[in-house]
Amino acid sequence: MNAVDRWPPVPDGSPFGVANLPFGIFSQPEPAARGGFRRIGVAVGDNVLDLSPLFGDDCFAAPTLDGFLARGRRMWSGTRARITELLTDPHYQGAVSPHLLPRSEVVLHLPFTVADYVDFYCSLDHASNVGRIFRPDAEPLLPNWRHLPVGYHGRAGTVVVSGTPVVRPSGQRRPPGAETPMFGPSVRLDIEAEVGFVVGVGSPLGEPVPIEAFADHVFGVVLLNDWSARDIQAWESQPLGPFLGKSFATSISPWVVPLEALAAARVKGRAQDPAPLPYLRRTEPWALDLSIEVALNGTVVSRPPFATMYWTPDQMLAHLTVNGASTRTGDLYGSGTVSGPDPSQRGSLIELTWNGTEPLVLADGSTRSFLEDGDTVTMSATAPAADGTRLTLGEVTGTIHPARPTP
Amino acid sequence: MNAVDRWPPVPDGSPFGVANLPFGIFSQPEPAARGGFRRIGVAVGDNVLDLSPLFGDDCFAAPTLDGFLARGRRMWSGTRARITELLTDPHYQGAVSPHLLPRSEVVLHLPFTVADYVDFYCSLDHASNVGRIFRPDAEPLLPNWRHLPVGYHGRAGTVVVSGTPVVRPSGQRRPPGAETPMFGPSVRLDIEAEVGFVVGVGSPLGEPVPIEAFADHVFGVVLLNDWSARDIQAWESQPLGPFLGKSFATSISPWVVPLEALAAARVKGRAQDPAPLPYLRRTEPWALDLSIEVALNGTVVSRPPFATMYWTPDQMLAHLTVNGASTRTGDLYGSGTVSGPDPSQRGSLIELTWNGTEPLVLADGSTRSFLEDGDTVTMSATAPAADGTRLTLGEVTGTIHPARPTP
Repeated sequence: MNAVDRWPPVPDGSPFGVANLPFGIFSQPEPAARGGFRRIGVAVGDNVLDLSPLFGDDCFAAPTLDGFLARGRRMWSGTRARITELLTDPHYQGAVSPHLLPRSEVVLHLPFTVADYVDFYCSLDHASNVGRIFRPDAEPLLPNWRHLPVGYHGRAGTVVVSGTPVVRPSGQRRPPGAETPMFGPSVRLDIEAEVGFVVGVGSPLGEPVPIEAFADHVFGVVLLNDWSARDIQAWESQPLGPFLGKSFATSISPWVVPLEALAAARVKGRAQDPAPLPYLRRTEPWALDLSIEVALNGTVVSRPPFATMYWTPDQMLAHLTVNGASTRTGDLYGSGTVSGPDPSQRGSLIELTWNGTEPLVLADGSTRSFLEDGDTVTMSATAPAADGTRLTLGEVTGTIHPARPTP
Repeated sequence: MNAVDRWPPVPDGSPFGVANLPFGIFSQPEPAARGGFRRIGVAVGDNVLDLSPLFGDDCFAAPTLDGFLARGRRMWSGTRARITELLTDPHYQGAVSPHLLPRSEVVLHLPFTVADYVDFYCSLDHASNVGRIFRPDAEPLLPNWRHLPVGYHGRAGTVVVSGTPVVRPSGQRRPPGAETPMFGPSVRLDIEAEVGFVVGVGSPLGEPVPIEAFADHVFGVVLLNDWSARDIQAWESQPLGPFLGKSFATSISPWVVPLEALAAARVKGRAQDPAPLPYLRRTEPWALDLSIEVALNGTVVSRPPFATMYWTPDQMLAHLTVNGASTRTGDLYGSGTVSGPDPSQRGSLIELTWNGTEPLVLADGSTRSFLEDGDTVTMSATAPAADGTRLTLGEVTGTIHPARPTP
């Protein structure tokens, strides 16, 4: 039992206020009571609200959000409304308090089973920077870029929860000027600051999801770090795209913030020229005013503004399914690296250091072009909440461990 | 109960002999006894052997092979040995016969839950043909091609079982000479004849699977048709690879043929020059002498020989995991289009018709550059079996249904 001296149980200024209420999966470490039992919790203040004893519904005693996600929008909304009631009406304080567990005492897990993972490339500033770095004498954007949200499938099985160590990948790369590739640990290990969208309700094969049905399918958002080995990626990617340069790990934040919590963060979205084809025309404002922060060993190195994205998540889902591809509970799609127009808003090291030519200087005086062993990257984000406060998406963090010895 | 007048219950010349014994998931249609109950069966002769009543093991009463696949190589081998004994020793005829159900009377289902789906590009002749078609004035193979098996992730959720209708996908394409894209049904719908490999036992994050451990992880093979909308693919694929041009459907055969059944089909594999990096060096002969046949509306249009592949499946798995990517039960990886050196051995229409310039003539006198609505494509394959007969991988078939109306 946890002492709670105020109701709602939220310290002043907490970004986990009652306007946030993100969902996740937690357990209590051994040898605590019910140790190891994974179940659904909602973050509030400094605590996790243990839903399973409060709701007479097995779906909250599950080790993933999958069952809850599949129930659909009315269930999501009704559950959120009931939790809000329980946490704000003083009448419930006595009954609810025993189910508030200090967040510092629980372990957080991958919140859902990742079905298919798609990664998009939706930031105009990111795509333009990449074009300028790799094709300095050509038009930065490729001909298709303003007509569709470019995307590709990534590896669902290596999506890991925040905190999971990231072992530096080994692979083939071709050093500059070399004829043939060499094998060894990546020497250009990078990050990509992204926002991920979690599909709750799937869609059948052959039936595109119309753009206006976005919120009937997508439950919420996570932060996502699409770790990228630029040297492996550069050598392998022609003609079929990234593979091992990305598939070693993709980290996501443990809390899934419901779209409903982001009502006050919804903005119109960047103007699009040319006008998208009809199936991609926005019907509602689904750009999101999320302020992302990227810290490397504690030094904030970037502040990407998600509101500057060219393609919005409703457009991404409409595009992903326009060919009739089905979707499933647990599908995850990433926005692609979030970069804003200002150099301080770039969401990857390759942009921040302009392909390694302008190293970053960290607070300890050291410099970085790409990640070194032992480096820790932490991304966090906040957004305006409906009650006038700011809410947090939590954080996604990971530390680079040395490559395993080459066999 | 099914009348079986010989033991083993295999008609002369059947490619489903006791040296084959592929695994699948079947049910009996309503209103038959146990209608709709999906469970594991093994194809033998013209029947399916219903394993669940014969083995006192719940894993055979499951609606997918997943549990069986996860058990590992000793279990796979022991089960196969026991089934062989049951089907060959006349002593068992009385006990086993009631569990032989005519294959014509059962429905076959997707045999396993597809975890991650990867598609490779391992045929030298296919990659060379594609290079010659799209880059006629350049070296057909890109610089990386002979150094690694090029691959990328596809959509696991749209892998479907043979017989599932394939709805013509709609999407963006840019007609030749046009500045901007248009939206509509694909007009260049193609096939890719491939062999798929099914991972039974996964591997942990951070631990590459050494090439010699291939058969400890991969249970068996399927035939795979990687349906491809060439016009959608061409417009969307830069710079991140294929996406909607492939993700609308990938069909696999319902029977998974165990690697163990293919012992007599194992051959040394095509010589590789330059020698691959150490992690890709073959330690055992895992090229497979499979003779594939592709029929379009009943006319055989190609006979791709799988033994001509440049990269072999043991190399594919070693590459897929060399960066530390984990694998899971149900991971599926395709070989890429199988094309042999002869024009009659090309595994896609884009090669067979040389990008539509040399249409195929079918038996009914009609011609095809790409697929038309109503077309049926059926791929099958045979291989030498250990008992001197030929075994079959079964078939993967699909019929093109018209595109849905553009919204």
